[in-house]
Parts: sequence; C-alpha cells; structure tokens
Amino acid sequence: MSGSSFGKLFVVTGFGESHGPAIGGVVDGCPPGLELSAADLQVDLDRRKPGQSRHTTQRRESDTVEILSGIFEGRTTGTPIGLLIRNEDQRSKDYSEIADRYRPGHADYTYEQKFGVRDYRGGGRSSARETAVRVAAGAIAKKYLAERCGIRIRGHLSQLGAIRPVGFDWDQVERNPFFWPCAESVPQLESYMDDLRREGNSVGAAVTVVASGVPTGLGEPIFDRLDADIAHAMMSINAVKGVEIGDGFACVAQKGTEHRDEMTPDGFLSNHAGGILGGISSGQDVVVRIALKPTSSMRLPGRSIDRSGSSVEVVTTGRHDPCVGIRATPIAEAMLALVLMDHLLRQRGQNADAIAPIQSIPPRASSS
Amino acid sequence: MSGSSFGKLFVVTGFGESHGPAIGGVVDGCPPGLELSAADLQVDLDRRKPGQSRHTTQRRESDTVEILSGIFEGRTTGTPIGLLIRNEDQRSKDYSEIADRYRPGHADYTYEQKFGVRDYRGGGRSSARETAVRVAAGAIAKKYLAERCGIRIRGHLSQLGAIRPVGFDWDQVERNPFFWPCAESVPQLESYMDDLRREGNSVGAAVTVVASGVPTGLGEPIFDRLDADIAHAMMSINAVKGVEIGDGFACVAQKGTEHRDEMTPDGFLSNHAGGILGGISSGQDVVVRIALKPTSSMRLPGRSIDRSGSSVEVVTTGRHDPCVGIRATPIAEAMLALVLMDHLLRQRGQNADAIAPIQSIPPRASSS
Amino acid sequence: MSGSSFGKLFVVTGFGESHGPAIGGVVDGCPPGLELSAADLQVDLDRRKPGQSRHTTQRRESDTVEILSGIFEGRTTGTPIGLLIRNEDQRSKDYSEIADRYRPGHADYTYEQKFGVRDYRGGGRSSARETAVRVAAGAIAKKYLAERCGIRIRGHLSQLGAIRPVGFDWDQVERNPFFWPCAESVPQLESYMDDLRREGNSVGAAVTVVASGVPTGLGEPIFDRLDADIAHAMMSINAVKGVEIGDGFACVAQKGTEHRDEMTPDGFLSNHAGGILGGISSGQDVVVRIALKPTSSMRLPGRSIDRSGSSVEVVTTGRHDPCVGIRATPIAEAMLALVLMDHLLRQRGQNADAIAPIQSIPPRASSS
Amino acid sequence: MSGSSFGKLFVVTGFGESHGPAIGGVVDGCPPGLELSAADLQVDLDRRKPGQSRHTTQRRESDTVEILSGIFEGRTTGTPIGLLIRNEDQRSKDYSEIADRYRPGHADYTYEQKFGVRDYRGGGRSSARETAVRVAAGAIAKKYLAERCGIRIRGHLSQLGAIRPVGFDWDQVERNPFFWPCAESVPQLESYMDDLRREGNSVGAAVTVVASGVPTGLGEPIFDRLDADIAHAMMSINAVKGVEIGDGFACVAQKGTEHRDEMTPDGFLSNHAGGILGGISSGQDVVVRIALKPTSSMRLPGRSIDRSGSSVEVVTTGRHDPCVGIRATPIAEAMLALVLMDHLLRQRGQNADAIAPIQSIPPRASSS
Repeated sequence: MSGSSFGKLFVVTGFGESHGPAIGGVVDGCPPGLELSAADLQVDLDRRKPGQSRHTTQRRESDTVEILSGIFEGRTTGTPIGLLIRNEDQRSKDYSEIADRYRPGHADYTYEQKFGVRDYRGGGRSSARETAVRVAAGAIAKKYLAERCGIRIRGHLSQLGAIRPVGFDWDQVERNPFFWPCAESVPQLESYMDDLRREGNSVGAAVTVVASGVPTGLGEPIFDRLDADIAHAMMSINAVKGVEIGDGFACVAQKGTEHRDEMTPDGFLSNHAGGILGGISSGQDVVVRIALKPTSSMRLPGRSIDRSGSSVEVVTTGRHDPCVGIRATPIAEAMLALVLMDHLLRQRGQNADAIAPIQSIPPRASSS
Repeated sequence: MSGSSFGKLFVVTGFGESHGPAIGGVVDGCPPGLELSAADLQVDLDRRKPGQSRHTTQRRESDTVEILSGIFEGRTTGTPIGLLIRNEDQRSKDYSEIADRYRPGHADYTYEQKFGVRDYRGGGRSSARETAVRVAAGAIAKKYLAERCGIRIRGHLSQLGAIRPVGFDWDQVERNPFFWPCAESVPQLESYMDDLRREGNSVGAAVTVVASGVPTGLGEPIFDRLDADIAHAMMSINAVKGVEIGDGFACVAQKGTEHRDEMTPDGFLSNHAGGILGGISSGQDVVVRIALKPTSSMRLPGRSIDRSGSSVEVVTTGRHDPCVGIRATPIAEAMLALVLMDHLLRQRGQNADAIAPIQSIPPRASSS
Repeated sequence: MSGSSFGKLFVVTGFGESHGPAIGGVVDGCPPGLELSAADLQVDLDRRKPGQSRHTTQRRESDTVEILSGIFEGRTTGTPIGLLIRNEDQRSKDYSEIADRYRPGHADYTYEQKFGVRDYRGGGRSSARETAVRVAAGAIAKKYLAERCGIRIRGHLSQLGAIRPVGFDWDQVERNPFFWPCAESVPQLESYMDDLRREGNSVGAAVTVVASGVPTGLGEPIFDRLDADIAHAMMSINAVKGVEIGDGFACVAQKGTEHRDEMTPDGFLSNHAGGILGGISSGQDVVVRIALKPTSSMRLPGRSIDRSGSSVEVVTTGRHDPCVGIRATPIAEAMLALVLMDHLLRQRGQNADAIAPIQSIPPRASSS
Repeated sequence: MSGSSFGKLFVVTGFGESHGPAIGGVVDGCPPGLELSAADLQVDLDRRKPGQSRHTTQRRESDTVEILSGIFEGRTTGTPIGLLIRNEDQRSKDYSEIADRYRPGHADYTYEQKFGVRDYRGGGRSSARETAVRVAAGAIAKKYLAERCGIRIRGHLSQLGAIRPVGFDWDQVERNPFFWPCAESVPQLESYMDDLRREGNSVGAAVTVVASGVPTGLGEPIFDRLDADIAHAMMSINAVKGVEIGDGFACVAQKGTEHRDEMTPDGFLSNHAGGILGGISSGQDVVVRIALKPTSSMRLPGRSIDRSGSSVEVVTTGRHDPCVGIRATPIAEAMLALVLMDHLLRQRGQNADAIAPIQSIPPRASSS
C-alpha cells in the first residue's frame, strides 16, 4: 500500500539510500517449504553489482546479502524474510559539491520539491543502489517459479544507443559484461563505451526480458492485468521511460490480420501479443522490452540552478555508469519475477475452483 | 487492493459486462465540497461513446450516467460516489456463434483458462464497455484538478496505422471524429477507415495525453512513482501494448547531453523527460504516449480452436470498432486524471510538512 | 485500500446514504462457478430489514437487491458483482430540524468536523442503512462458505440491556423478532421494549456470532491475524463499542491452567480461545461477541450545540430503532462471513504448498 | 496489503523470529523533517524489554535498535526508515523438547496447520519478540504526534487477574515494574506474582491506553473507522482476546440517556464514547481497553498431542512471562500511536479542503 512496497500477496518492501549504513527489505508472502539460502540470492546480486568491468561505475560493493528471518533448517517458513546489504564503499566527499545544486536530469530537484529535504549523497533514496534489494527479492521469486512451476525468466540488453544485435544466442548473454546476446558485436560495444567514457557522456539502452513456461490465467482484470502490473514494475526502475509488451509500439502500424495470433490444437502460430491477452497470460512467452534513458551523471557540464534559485553549472564527478542499461538486465528480470510470483499466488487464491474446459495449448514452436 | 480497484486515496472500483444489465462503479475519496452533477460526467462520456460516426462500432448506447450517492445540495460530501450506467443496446444473438469458440487475439481463451467460465456475449467483462465507468470517474478527477489546482488534461490521436499528423493544433482535436490534431489530414483518415471497413480488417493507433499545470512533487518513490502508476493505468486499458513517457523509446539512442533537460531560473530548457524525474513530477507538462493494437474483431476469418480443442475458423460479425484507438483519447485522459488525483492526495497526506527551499521553476515556454 | 472497501482478495466496496437515491456496492473476488441469484441475497436482507415488528424503526424499505453484473447463466463468473438497493421510504422532512444541530451521541458533529459538510438527512452516510449492503455481500460469502467448505455461520442476540437468556436453543433464534435463543424470556423482552418505547429512551445490547466447520490455518500473522480482522470488521459496524473472541474479557481473571484448551487425538477439550490461536483458526468454533451502545436517537431531549456553536436542546423525532442490537445479528453474521471468505482465499493463495504433518483434530464435542 | 504490514500511509512492515539472527522492519511514510535518532526509539524499547524485574521473563536482550536509512543530518527525509534489532540471548536448547509437540494454548499447532512447518524455537514468528519492532515504529509515530500535533499517548495496566487499582495516579505508572497507576497496591501485585511464579501458573490482565489532544476528524468511514482500525491494531497483539472503546461492554446495560455525551459550547459533559463517534474522533480522549489472556507457557503440565497425532504431556520450561500483560503497556501505546499517525495522514490527504463550520469544542474537563 505504501510507495515502498510492491505486490499484493508476494510483497517486497525496501529501504535504504546510496550512502546510508545499509539497504535492505522484507519479502512477505513467500510460500513455505522452499529451499533458500543467501547464496541463492548472491548469484543474481553478483550479476548486477557495480565495478565488474570498466564499462560500469567503479564503486566497489560486495553486495553481500544477509537473510535475517523467514528461513528454518534451510527452508522458507512462510513468514517474512528480512534482507540486509551493508553499504561498504560510500565516498560522500564526491558529493559535497552538489549538496546545494540540482543535477539536471536527476531527481535532486524533484525530491527536494516533494520532501523539502534530500540526502544528496549519491542521490540518496533516488540512487539505483536500492535496485540491489529488488534483485535479491526477485531471486527468491525466480527460484520458486523455476523449481515449482517450471517458469524460466531471462533477459538481455537488446539495444545500446543505436546498436542492435546482429544475431541472437541466449548462451552469449552471460559471457560478456553487457548481457548482450551476440558475441560478434561485443567488440563494437566495448569500443563504443570506451569512446563514451572518454567523452564524459552517457547513452540510453533497451533491455528485453522473456518469461517462458508461464501458465495461462495470470492477471487480475481489469486494473491489475498482468501487463499493467508488468508496466508498473518496469517503469518503477530508475531511468526507464518506456515499456512495451510483445510487438509493443510496432502494433500501431499493424493490421488486425497481421497482429492476431492464430490458434491451432498444436499451439499458437505467432506471438505478437507477447504472451498476454486481455491482461491475462496465454501460456506463450511473456515478452517485455523497456527503454532506459541516458543517465544524467556526466562529466560534461550542464546548466542548472542551485537551492537559492540561481544559475549554476553542474559537473558530475565521482563514479557513475555511462549507461545504466548495462546493469539493468538482472533488475528487469527481478521485477518480472516479482510480478509473476504475485500473480501466481493471486490466481491460486481467487480461482482455485476454476476448471478450464480444455488444457492450455502450447506456445508457438520457437522462442526468441 | 483487488483487481477491480484503482488508486489508493482516490479509488475507483468498477463492475459490469458488455451484455449485463448495467455497468457502474464507486469513486471513493473525492474531497468534499466539489460542485458535481451527472451532467459534468456526461460531457466526457459523450466524447467516448460508440456510434457517433461511421468509423466506430454502431452499437447505440446513450451511456447516461446516474449518480447514486456522495452528493448533497450539488456538492460532494467526501463520502463514496456510486455511478450507474444501464446497458441499452445488447444484441446477444450476435454472439451465439462464438459461445463455444475462442476469437483469436481476444481474451476469450485466457478468460476461460483463468476462470473456467466466461460470459461470451460481447466479451463479457473483457469488453471495452467498462471503460465508460473509467471515463465517468476520470471526469470527477479532471474537474477537481482543473478547478482546484489549475491542472489541464487533454489528449489526441497521434498516429493511426502509419499516418501521423502533418501539423499540430489542439483546437482541431474536438472537431473531427478522431480526436486528430490536424484538420488537413482528416480526409486521409476518413478514406483510410472507409477502406478498412470495406476490407473487414482493423488497424492500430497511438494516443498522446498531456497534463499541464501539474505541481512538483507528485509520485511516491520507489514503487509508486508517478510514471510507474501512469504506466499501470495506461496498460490497463484494453488493447494497449506500450506506454512511454516524454521521449520514451527515442531515449534509447540519445546521448546524455541531448536528453537532459537543463534548468535556469526562468525555467526548464526542454522536456525530454516528459515532466517526471526520479518518478516525481517536475512541474513540466506530463507527456504520455500509448500504443494500441489493432482489434481482433474482424470480418476476415482467422484460425482458432473451440472449447473442445478442435480447429475452427472464426469470423466476427456484429458491431465493432475497426480501430479502438479512435475512441481511446477520453479513456487515456481519464486514466491520467485518476493517477494525478490519487497522487495529489497522497502528496498532501504524506508531505504536508514539506517546505521546499525554492519555489518551483516554470516549465519550458512552448508546450506541444 | 480506501475506507469504503473491506477485504483483500474478497473485497466489498460500498456506497450510499440514508436518503440518497440508492445504496449499493461491488463484491470483487468471488470465485467463479457459484450458483447465485438475487433471491439468495434477499433471505438475509429480509432478516435485517426495518419495520418488521413494533420493536424496530418503522421505516418501510423492501431492501430489494438487484444484481447488475458478475453472474452468467446463474453462476458467478469470477468478475465483480454489482449490487443495487433503491431507497424507497425517505422522509427527509423528519430531519429538517436537525440540519443545523448536532444530535448528541451521533456522528453529526464528527462528520462535519471531518468533511466540513454533511448530508444531515437520516445521518447520511453514517446511517446504518448502508449495513444492508454488507448483509447482501455477506450473503454471497456465506453461501460459498457453506456450500463449498461446510462452514456454518449463525448469530444471536445474547444480551439486551441487563437481560440474558435463561436457556439456549439455536432453533428459537429465527422464531422471534429479536434473534433471541430462548423462547421463555421473549415476553420479558417485548415488555421491556414496549416500556422503552413509551419512555422514549434506548438501550444497549450484545450479539454473539459463531462460525463452525472452520478449517485450520486461516489468518495472516502478524497484523492480519484472523482475530484482528474480525475485530476490525465488527468494530466497523455502527454502534459497536467492544469486541471479544472466545472468553474475551473473562480471560483477564483466568489462570493459565483454566484458560488453555488442552488437546487430545480425539479433539480439543475446551474452547476458551474461541477458535483462534496465535491469530490463526484452530478448527474449533470461532466465537465472537460484540457490544452495541444504546442509540442516540431518542425522544428524550439532550443538550447539544448547533452549527454556530450555540447551546441547543435536541429531540429526535422520526422513526428509529430503540435498540439497534435487535437487527444487528444478520450484520454481524455478514461481517464474520466476509472475514472468513477473505482469509480462505488468502490462505489458498499464500500456502497452497503447505502440507501439515497431521490432519486437524476435531473441535470439542458440544458447541453452544 | 500483506499480513506483515500495518497502515496505509504510515506503514510498518516487520520481520523476525524469536531465535533468528534479528528482528526488524521498515517504517514507510514518516513525514520529512522530524528530528529522529535511535535514542528516541530506545526509550520505549527499554520500557518493553524483558528481564527488568523478577516478574517477567529472564531472557536478556538489550533490544538495541539501529536505524539503517531514512534519516539525514538528524532528521527524517520522508524516505523509508529501516530498523534492525539483533537477537542476543537465544537459548534454542530450551525448545528442543517441544520441537515435535504442540504446546496447548500456543500457536504451535495452528502455525503448523497453516504453513506445514514451523520454527519451533521460542515460538518462531508467533513469539512476542516481534513486538519490539512495533514499539520502535510506534515511538516514531508517538514523537511526531507529540511534537507536531500535541497528541499525548499513555497507557497503564488496569487489571491483573482480579486485582484492580484502588486509586489512580498517572505519575505512578513509570515507577513500578507493572505500569500500575496506584502505588498502594504494588506490594499486592508483587506478592501475587511471586505466588504465581512458584505455582508455575500464569494469569490474564487488562491494559488501558489513552490518547489526549487528538484532533477531530480522524477515521475513514465506513470500514476504516478509527475505532475499527484501533480494534484491528490491538487484537493483532499476542494474547489479546478483547478490545473495547470508551465504556465498551458496559454500554450493553446502559440506557441512551446515560450513555450519550452531551455537548455545550464549553465542551463535552462526559466521555462514554471514548473519544470516537460514528468512527471519527471527536476531540475527546480516545480511551481503549484490551484483555490479555494468561499465557500458555507454564511449568504446570498440560495434555496435548505431538506431530504424529499421539497424546503427550507438555511442560514448558525455559524463560517466560507469567503475565504478558505486565509488558504490554508500551506495545498497546505503540499500536495506538501507529493508528493515529496513519489516520492523521489520511485525513490530511483526503480532506485538506474541508473547513468545518465551527471550531471543535473542548473535551470534558477531567481525564482519567
């Protein structure tokens, strides 16, 4: 119910600023009996964490998570799971210069307009640091969905600036620092990012996430449709400015005969809908793509104002990601996992009595 | 908290199917003292209703709304407002043929997978008929926001198939059946739609909604950010497959220096962010664009299955919109109004104590 | 989430004032497939409605409910159920005298302090008229719980003023106008109420509700414990000033050895806990007792103030219940049904995986 | 929305078991600008903590709280506040004997029926250990309410077994280990408790909490009435079996003329209503009384069953409170503070526009 909580039956409530003592949260509603340890969460946290290549911020955080409750003899008890990640590498002096000024494109100005105050160090609560908690919580959901339901969630960077992959291979995604699905263009990305860093600029990106093995029937019309909750989840990620499902904005120029996914007893013939019809999962792959804006933390100066309303020039030094999209894949996967987990439990709660007339039909044969 | 409710302090709860006795809802949390009558709601309902041109479904509904509570001596009391719209023109026989089959691209299949049953007449609850309730509720929010806060919300069709406006004039929007902002291309649209109807096909569209005069500080980080709730609201509308804020997907290829909206004491210099930074309103125009897929109700046959799992061919007769985007503008406006209203009340509730260091700066000079 | 909604998965949202056009609501989250008609709801509405004996208010309302959605071919579809009850017998002139004054003990003063305005006719939204909607919604829950789960919910008046039953027989409850479980003392009650009406005074009452056949495991610790939600539900009923579970306030003076309900393989040996342990149902009868204050609508004058802050004397004429407890039994039953229904769905949603080590043990042999 | 969260705008989400690494929580929605430090919370934590006299459990916990976020330069930022309290004195061996058996009157049986598993050590999540988090969160609310609104919240033990105070003096409450408002009977209580401990039994208690200086207008009819939320909050505390407001169950035998609180321009003449009318605060003291059952952790053996369903005898050794009521006062105060804080923010959010016709009238002259 509050702005810091996400979900209705599987609920994540987070806290923590970039430069405070710690970040963390509570995951409430995880079903009992799931084998779970901090190591399970650490895998995805390690995929997300900063400083793992020259292309991301050089802030060093181990992002070591501690589970404080909700586990007994290695399994979840059904009671709330407390998560804690201590901040280790805060360099607050990096921020003393922007204590009184608003970095253009950042949330400094809007946070201070809203709250009257802000923790300026590292962006405070507006920093993407809190996404580590989402990833830890999402890892719990991912594990449950995979082990109990056979649902697989994986994402990849699908565009960096104007660069798109020339081929597609899921196996490549974990083999480069970008979550890029195409080995061939990795050198191009590296070279591009090196130039960007030298320039002191930043660039946008797009990330695609896919969930396969999703059962039919998830989504609560009309306001908590599955796609509506997915859009909510994705747009809540820092720097996201657009969300699309399936063919997304390409639908605008499509005819009905092109768009509709015909059905046969052997399965669907296409997946323009991205796995969701009428706000409810169809059993096909759920395909989501998000647009991330270029970050506003750049060495290149920008015009802004300070807390007295006077003109200033702002330069952001310190350690920042020139492209937040590079580390966004695990975050997007986590948010999709949280939405699917929540809806799985809601469908079980609301419609345990429902017996569909026929078994669900298979998705179309090949998945991207 | 349920799938049929939207909002936290200003809450709309709807009910009603396409062919049931009535649709309606409850609007809870409207502040007291607002002058309100059914006539105020009827204006937007009339903008949305079917059958007003040959380009939309020919179902005849007056969509006359009755206010059942929450008003006393012409003003809101702060207690819940009950809304009722009787269905008048149900032709259930139009649907008897699809009682046992799933129209491809529609929610027939997914509803039956979810609930085990479905009211097949007109799509039941999945029908866009329920959007009339959203428009009525949104009209209440719009009135309050306009009268008490000077917030103006207006939308327009921004793309029909591949056709985009060649000029832009807000005054044109209410003068043609499409909510199109450019008089010059209206004949092109009419001709296109006539061809489409003859063909028996459908097409997608994009709608843009803009809110101006929005105060700073709306949005509840991190999960109920203003953009996240807007995305949720828009994606919950039937046929929507994509939502973007400000430059949206165009951000992907932008550099940081291009994207960031610099600030001066006289105002912002651009609005790539679409009025939202860090999930909180900046005082600039909030600009949202949505993608609507081509509807699946077409006379052109499609392959599908029936309730026994056997192959069938499905043709949709009856009265349908060849392009749902044409009537979507009032719905998108209503959803944006609901989100802003809810967040206005939440900001008042959470941060009445906040005193920002400076007055907010003006938006950039010209608005689209 | 709003004040007009109750429940999380099975949600009731109500609207309507005493003298407006209608009262009604939306029931969201009813599982699909339940046989349901307006006649099912009318049974409990008829038990609650006014004017059925000389001992209650003489306002004549048929309380005829209309179901507007959510039903298809006689069964629930899983989509929201709209309910409407038109007000028929509003005598607004009865209230013109209190338009400007606050009846002591009523909500007139507090509503106007809260909202700045109030619909004074019949108490507006604060009137117990809205309880008809709760009873209609509760009837849906009762039916599902009875038919699908074997849960039986029934209540009775357990104290009127200082009068308690001398014997106990459930079969008597529906045979007198009081829901009194003892035929022998009915004449005493009638005589008492006749005197009260002549005097122009009112009296308090207590009502007990019992749910039997409740499965173990309902309740969501720690804040949404079953007893906490029951207390919330009951205290939300007009005129309720106290709620107790099981032995309730008698627990204060008990020793642990007296209070604890010992267990054997053949069942529990007592039920001091009232069916709830640690906030979760134990399989025993859930026993709840509520205290209702004497109403403040009396012919006997009382001192108060008016809207200008001056002293006035207030006399309430018109038609009122001298003891609201007399008609409270169906309302309390309805609220208990709503809580149990909501928790049943929540338990299904959260813990479908849970397999208890042993089957639940039976409740103690005899139930009151 | 989940069972582990309480509140809508001022939300507490807790986690933690009796014998896990830590307990803690997130407080979301605290307005910005409040001076706050861990020391502020420690005061109430110290009032609640175990082992401070021979009359309570001898478990030694410092209950030292750490604030992990939400504070900057000594003041709240409006962002979520993370709280952490490490468990120090877990003696898990004390519980190995009851790993397989259900202590009668405890939640062991119901937790295992619900979740299929339980952390048996110290009662796991069902332990009253988690109430420390409520007290820490409540301390934040108390501070805000006192400093910003002049609302004072204080409670006292009002009955221990059959013993009631013979006089009343608020100043005595903090001077004895019982929160007893009467110095004269303290020796009687001590003697009684010594006997109880020797006997190995336990006893019930009642606690009264009073909030003074409460503004009018708090409470959201009809379901989130102030008294309904208070009842919810209190009944969610371990061992509570009854809640009453104002005269509570004494109302049952009252006549209307006795019960109603008449009003004059100089104030109310009585406070039978306990400060709430129609579910909304009246400006009078809010008076709440709760009944706590005798705990089930006793050295005196009781009959029960084990996890295979066989008869066993259960004796609880280890360290326990013979009367949980003794430490309940700070917990009840905390819950009342949380409810009032939440409703204060909700009233601000919903009804900022409301202008009451007259200023509120004073409460009756003397408060208990």
